[in-house]
Amino acid sequence: MPSQKPIRVALLGCGTVGTEVVRLLTGQAADLAARVGAPVELAGIAVRKPNKHREVPADLLTTDAAALVASDVDVVVEVIGGIEPARTLLLDALRAGKSVVTANKALLAEHSAELSAAADGSGADLYFEAAVAGAIPLLRPLRESLAGDRITRVMGIVNGTTNFILSGMDSTGASYGETLEEATRLGYAEADPTADVDGFDAASKAAILASLAFHTRVTASDVHREGIASVSAADIAAARALGRTVKLLAICERVTEGDQESVSVRVHPAMIPRSHPLAGVNGAFNAVFVEADAAGEMMFYGQGAGGAPTASAVLGDLVAVARNLVQGGRGPRESAYAGLPARPMGQTPTRYHISLDVADRAGVLSQVAAVFAEHDVSIAAVRQEGRVDDASLVVVTHAATDAALRSTVDKIGGLPVVREVVSVMRVEGEET
Amino acid sequence: MPSQKPIRVALLGCGTVGTEVVRLLTGQAADLAARVGAPVELAGIAVRKPNKHREVPADLLTTDAAALVASDVDVVVEVIGGIEPARTLLLDALRAGKSVVTANKALLAEHSAELSAAADGSGADLYFEAAVAGAIPLLRPLRESLAGDRITRVMGIVNGTTNFILSGMDSTGASYGETLEEATRLGYAEADPTADVDGFDAASKAAILASLAFHTRVTASDVHREGIASVSAADIAAARALGRTVKLLAICERVTEGDQESVSVRVHPAMIPRSHPLAGVNGAFNAVFVEADAAGEMMFYGQGAGGAPTASAVLGDLVAVARNLVQGGRGPRESAYAGLPARPMGQTPTRYHISLDVADRAGVLSQVAAVFAEHDVSIAAVRQEGRVDDASLVVVTHAATDAALRSTVDKIGGLPVVREVVSVMRVEGEET
Repeated sequence: MPSQKPIRVALLGCGTVGTEVVRLLTGQAADLAARVGAPVELAGIAVRKPNKHREVPADLLTTDAAALVASDVDVVVEVIGGIEPARTLLLDALRAGKSVVTANKALLAEHSAELSAAADGSGADLYFEAAVAGAIPLLRPLRESLAGDRITRVMGIVNGTTNFILSGMDSTGASYGETLEEATRLGYAEADPTADVDGFDAASKAAILASLAFHTRVTASDVHREGIASVSAADIAAARALGRTVKLLAICERVTEGDQESVSVRVHPAMIPRSHPLAGVNGAFNAVFVEADAAGEMMFYGQGAGGAPTASAVLGDLVAVARNLVQGGRGPRESAYAGLPARPMGQTPTRYHISLDVADRAGVLSQVAAVFAEHDVSIAAVRQEGRVDDASLVVVTHAATDAALRSTVDKIGGLPVVREVVSVMRVEGEET
Repeated sequence: MPSQKPIRVALLGCGTVGTEVVRLLTGQAADLAARVGAPVELAGIAVRKPNKHREVPADLLTTDAAALVASDVDVVVEVIGGIEPARTLLLDALRAGKSVVTANKALLAEHSAELSAAADGSGADLYFEAAVAGAIPLLRPLRESLAGDRITRVMGIVNGTTNFILSGMDSTGASYGETLEEATRLGYAEADPTADVDGFDAASKAAILASLAFHTRVTASDVHREGIASVSAADIAAARALGRTVKLLAICERVTEGDQESVSVRVHPAMIPRSHPLAGVNGAFNAVFVEADAAGEMMFYGQGAGGAPTASAVLGDLVAVARNLVQGGRGPRESAYAGLPARPMGQTPTRYHISLDVADRAGVLSQVAAVFAEHDVSIAAVRQEGRVDDASLVVVTHAATDAALRSTVDKIGGLPVVREVVSVMRVEGEET
């Protein structure tokens, strides 16, 4: 259908991802036209400093993003990132009936309700596959392929920087600080690594995943978030001694109590068995496990970031949006009908690994065990090893609420026979 | 939108998958209605022997599938399998403008052109996620998420029966015959296992995957197919000695020679390194690797068969089709614009592992190596081990065409110094 009116695309932002979007759009123009049923044409690229973008056609560059959005374009692709001006620009686009493709996880994790309402108001499409796990097709499977199933759990590694650092600490035994420095030097961590290492990036992604998986509006503020800055070499060593490794996990769980359902959405480091498929996901790769009632367990694995992989996801969405414009119809709308409450972390059952330095004498284990029993925290496994003048005691618990575990650990730390609480960390994956 | 007109569904077939479809449709009715925007209603179930289906509502059962398709239904879900009567029923449905969801890989691998033409003629939807890799969302990612990328390779384990048998042979050292018997006894292989063990099932799936990945019409007859019946305990042992394992792989490759592109689509057993992620896929699980220019390498993993997992994929498609009916619009159409030629297996470069029993004397290696050189087959690795009165010689080649490898092996088998060609098998995965 080469006679079809071209689909005109406004690109907002032209960093690593935007540059790749331009490259793919122009390099594959004939293929894209055949797949869409009409040519897909780049109408303009909004950037802050046009003279910094010599790799894209100069006549397409503009500094006036709002005017570009308001011009005669059919689709707006946003790869600026951050809340503003992206939010205003995309709301303007959607309200004007222009479809939007965005890779902006922070914006979606905060303002998806507003954006979805704007899209529904005008009938425009809102696609955002690139916002989570880069090139890995994950959001489309969640919101379309599994739309007839009941998803119970999504658990994955969705941040490459923290995964690179934890992989590094695991293989070298180095401290968090040393490894972060190395990651920054190699370009795996940004100069200000806060968004990554404090878990903000993963929390945004967890909010998006949970929203789609549970048909419930989940925002970043609903996500319990712990970063990796407090993961010590001792934690890593303790994990290793148990055949485990430490990963920063994003976990979205459906929790059922009686006939009450809620969702627990959290980001925290956790020990997982080395035999777990997520344990083998190293460096900048991402992987996500999904469990659903009928489908069972699934895993999705691939490159979680980077210009070309993210651009691949953007282009897939762009083809979908453009096809809808050519064929008529719309992509899936926001599905938040279930409206499940977010479960506070204090009430969420998880398992814990606790490693203690204790005095090496009779009765220590019984004192420690008594504290667990007192707080109703059931012990799954214990390992005690004598050393020269003290002993190492490792306890892995069954699932208990965070609140119960916290008070248990506080009390144990105060026992005279306990010299040091060496490592306290959540445990995920198979039962030990 | 509870006031919306219900979407009426005809179910054709009610075996393992159909029963689960009924269970999910009725058990999740409220959720499905919320997700679709209208109730999804089962209008009838066509079966051959109604008295054999006591687990589904008797008033829905009919033996007249054609009349059910012709009745006032919006969507036809087909889980009968096989070519006829499925083909005629689905063509009738599509021509009448009724959308179709099918799990029928054999039908799609033979007649997708005809089915797609019927769908395009009336504007109906044709979805078939459940036809390949059961519950794993794979087709939607290929034809939608990666629609803006250039897929170069799809390689995976897509048949659970053969994977169960090969896993079994690997762990016990037993013969193919013994392991097949065990698989049949446990219900992992059918009484007539031909479709699975001879690779027909995997070949149908490979044709479907290649069609979507390469925007080219690929039918089962374009797929080079080798089953697992000739895999011997010696092959498995030879693989093990090299840190490899044997899997039945479906491989779809884009081959570029000069400015000529073609596709190689094949199903055959191959040795892969034990460190390869596909090596860890055991029993009835499926896993598929996808490589694309921009996205890089991705893996999809999950349950490849079974009633509930397959029904999950069917329901996902049903929700998509029903949403399209409610919102207007259509799902993706057949995309076969690229029309790449299928590359004959004789011209397809693959690597080979050859294990020989040879006389243990000077000059053997040079004689064998000369035959390889003569046929322009480059050797990647050699391992020779002396035994009591002969020696074992293992050769792994670089990629060469199947034709060259075949004549090399024929000639080597005829060398007087070669006592026996113990094992000849393709090698996939990382270079050795």
